[in-house]
Amino acid sequence: MNFLELAQKRHSIRSYTSEPVSQEKIDYILECARIAPSAVNFQPWHFYIARSEEVLQKIRQSYPREWFSSAPHIIVCCIQHNESWHRPTDQKDHGDIDIAIAVEHICLAAAEQSLGTCWVCNFDAQFLHEQLHLPENEEPAVLIPFGHPNPNKEVKPTPRKELQEIVSQI
Amino acid sequence: MNFLELAQKRHSIRSYTSEPVSQEKIDYILECARIAPSAVNFQPWHFYIARSEEVLQKIRQSYPREWFSSAPHIIVCCIQHNESWHRPTDQKDHGDIDIAIAVEHICLAAAEQSLGTCWVCNFDAQFLHEQLHLPENEEPAVLIPFGHPNPNKEVKPTPRKELQEIVSQI
Repeated sequence: MNFLELAQKRHSIRSYTSEPVSQEKIDYILECARIAPSAVNFQPWHFYIARSEEVLQKIRQSYPREWFSSAPHIIVCCIQHNESWHRPTDQKDHGDIDIAIAVEHICLAAAEQSLGTCWVCNFDAQFLHEQLHLPENEEPAVLIPFGHPNPNKEVKPTPRKELQEIVSQI
Repeated sequence: MNFLELAQKRHSIRSYTSEPVSQEKIDYILECARIAPSAVNFQPWHFYIARSEEVLQKIRQSYPREWFSSAPHIIVCCIQHNESWHRPTDQKDHGDIDIAIAVEHICLAAAEQSLGTCWVCNFDAQFLHEQLHLPENEEPAVLIPFGHPNPNKEVKPTPRKELQEIVSQI
């Protein structure tokens, strides 16, 4: 499987079996996140692996969708804004860029292991921050539910813009 | 090569040969960017492939480093802020997150093709915006120089934080 095939294999999975993911696979996925690049190599991130039912319930409340509850595990992916690089010229905070790189590594590594993930950004970040008593400098930026995809749920490919619409030669 | 090996193979390359990259490889890399996920699938991005010497000179002026001039090609990766998803609850603009996903697809696809890239964010974005006459709603967020790595330049692995420092079980 080359990288294009892997990127094609990664889909938003919104239905999971209840089978837990092996520790070996979780370790592999996290190692792929760990080695992700970041601005000035500051690695301004923290990943919370939610497994306890109590914590999972709190996270589900921040994004109350029925499908979301089927995921046996959720990673709360946080930016550490006190660690992220701010560009000197205009103070642009690169935390969003950094967390996105690491999170996509997670999703691609999971897809390679035939696991499903879904980028979830439309959750109540302030509510979750309070419920999980996260440090003040940490922003929960992305939730990644993951698990074994429900084999009975068809996954349709998502359309994309054509290349000529998004690329120019200059 | 599994995904972990590919992610390990991707390094910041700061020395290139003058050999141009084949159109086939460029097309492959761009296809990998094209299919990247984005918030609500809005794909708020545009990629400018700089090849002409005049344009390359302007880009180099926005990031005047000697090594940067050795790259035969540069991709100017822009966020389209009028197309990016803004989270309804707090208006958080997800353009940085989206462009980072697509750009990392570029870097990983290039590494797979044994090409070098380097994330460059510390450039003068306002100057470049003016010089390239970019549309008002586009922000040049990342420059990706790419080409064949100089085989005589040693690449040292970059240290990363340990897993226990960046991961918690909750």
